[in-house]
Amino acid sequence: MSNPTEVVKTYLLDLQERICAALHAEDGGAGFIEDTWQRPEGGGGRTRVLENGRLIEKAGVNFSHVFGSSLPPSASAHRPELAGRGFEALGVSLVIHPRNPHIPTAHANVRFFNAEKPGEEPVWWFGGGLDLTPYYGVEEDCVHWHRVAAQACAPFGAEVYPRYKAWCDRYFQIKHRNEPRGIGGLFFDDVNQWDFDTSRAFMQAIGDAFIPAYLPIMQRRKDTPFSEQQREFQAFRRGRYVEFNLVYDRGTLFGLQSGGRTESILMSLPPQVRWGYDWKPEPGSAEARLTEFFLTDRDWLGTSENNKDRANG
Amino acid sequence: MSNPTEVVKTYLLDLQERICAALHAEDGGAGFIEDTWQRPEGGGGRTRVLENGRLIEKAGVNFSHVFGSSLPPSASAHRPELAGRGFEALGVSLVIHPRNPHIPTAHANVRFFNAEKPGEEPVWWFGGGLDLTPYYGVEEDCVHWHRVAAQACAPFGAEVYPRYKAWCDRYFQIKHRNEPRGIGGLFFDDVNQWDFDTSRAFMQAIGDAFIPAYLPIMQRRKDTPFSEQQREFQAFRRGRYVEFNLVYDRGTLFGLQSGGRTESILMSLPPQVRWGYDWKPEPGSAEARLTEFFLTDRDWLGTSENNKDRANG
Repeated sequence: MSNPTEVVKTYLLDLQERICAALHAEDGGAGFIEDTWQRPEGGGGRTRVLENGRLIEKAGVNFSHVFGSSLPPSASAHRPELAGRGFEALGVSLVIHPRNPHIPTAHANVRFFNAEKPGEEPVWWFGGGLDLTPYYGVEEDCVHWHRVAAQACAPFGAEVYPRYKAWCDRYFQIKHRNEPRGIGGLFFDDVNQWDFDTSRAFMQAIGDAFIPAYLPIMQRRKDTPFSEQQREFQAFRRGRYVEFNLVYDRGTLFGLQSGGRTESILMSLPPQVRWGYDWKPEPGSAEARLTEFFLTDRDWLGTSENNKDRANG
Repeated sequence: MSNPTEVVKTYLLDLQERICAALHAEDGGAGFIEDTWQRPEGGGGRTRVLENGRLIEKAGVNFSHVFGSSLPPSASAHRPELAGRGFEALGVSLVIHPRNPHIPTAHANVRFFNAEKPGEEPVWWFGGGLDLTPYYGVEEDCVHWHRVAAQACAPFGAEVYPRYKAWCDRYFQIKHRNEPRGIGGLFFDDVNQWDFDTSRAFMQAIGDAFIPAYLPIMQRRKDTPFSEQQREFQAFRRGRYVEFNLVYDRGTLFGLQSGGRTESILMSLPPQVRWGYDWKPEPGSAEARLTEFFLTDRDWLGTSENNKDRANG
């Protein structure tokens, strides 16, 4: 294969560019600001942030490429035996917090790791995924999101979408709340079961899926009117987002604890957040429906055995 | 000694009562609501929360008494060898988030642990402390806070205040921001260097110090007018408080990960919070002075060797 890092890097920088352009065009207000940064231990990044847009209250779309002399155990889900190897990691990571509570918050990430050890073959793998966090859920949006995710996976095998959909549901659990962060999507790590070009094509398929998965939802909901009370509900729910990211998210914790660039890591945190003691929505309300119906690790495409049984039953 | 748990419990329940009464009287608005709860694995608690008071935006003053069959390693700072023993833990923990940004946020905690193992002597210890997080710092308030803390320690030896003041500075570090959470106070753990009655008296001295340390500051600052822009600064700084509590605070993480009562643990989170990308105050502003002057692990009472040298020099 040609230099794998360069091929991946070219794709990722272009992906960041395309996603920012699409979001900016849709927002129609403030543009992205850019910060490039260097990491003292090696590597750096290109952080792009949009704040106080017309639709987007805060969005970050970050590219980073970092090197290290010792791979942290948290970098690979399944192969702690690689810990301590020299490594490089490249990725694009993004979070969109729209103002309108009818537009969900979205997160996506694609990354490439290469771990080296003198005298041994380098070990490489891809990771990533995308997941959606609605406030006032709409079924057709959830189905659309998962359909685009499933279509991106389809060329790589029928088992790919269900496998990474299930991993996403497992990963984005707020354990102390006993609820998922959102309605999921895809989560994958340690992808090298295919050859390099196929694995890379898979990562690119997921990266490329973000805009077609998210933009139509933004377009459909952006003109839905919202009240101050709905903004308040969004602020309380954003508190859950903060709880997940700061207590459980592997990437966030690894970044903070290993001397990553704090502002690029914490761009994922929502702009305005509330916490209230034992806060819960009225039973039967639109707000209660979020946790009762949407945040239940549903099978949105009706493809699981269970649903097939019910459909046929 | 008489039943140690009963003696400590009687003190703690009374302390909770007295602190709530003093805060409610000062606030003059909303009262505390009370939730008593049982823990399926043993024990329970009495949570008291005041929200939307006249001065207090959110306050929690919690008593808990929990039992377990296996002490988690995080429970004792210095003796991981006790991990796995049966234990009971009693404590009062409180956090006050005032509305007026000229009144600092305050936190205090006192706790008692008893770890048992068949055929061996039980091992007991006390822990706790108090610390202050100003937004618009006032030197006389910081000096007052530390003076009351030092006076509470004085009967137990001249080395006690400097030792636990330094531990507090070390503990409340937001490492990824390279700044302390506030201006400190006291932090202690594993206190059993004295006999039981003396150790208990020390814990009680710290518990009793909270109201005389905090209430005068609240009284002095409660009528200081504040602007929307100052409220915004407070909201951004509260973001740092959330970061510390969710990323680093041992009690919070242990509680959340071990199936504690989520709402009682997270009552410490501020009611309204903001995050902005690379947000920093204007250099030279009152807001910049917080990190430049106040949040620098100062020796507020001028008692360290350094300060003595400077004073005598």
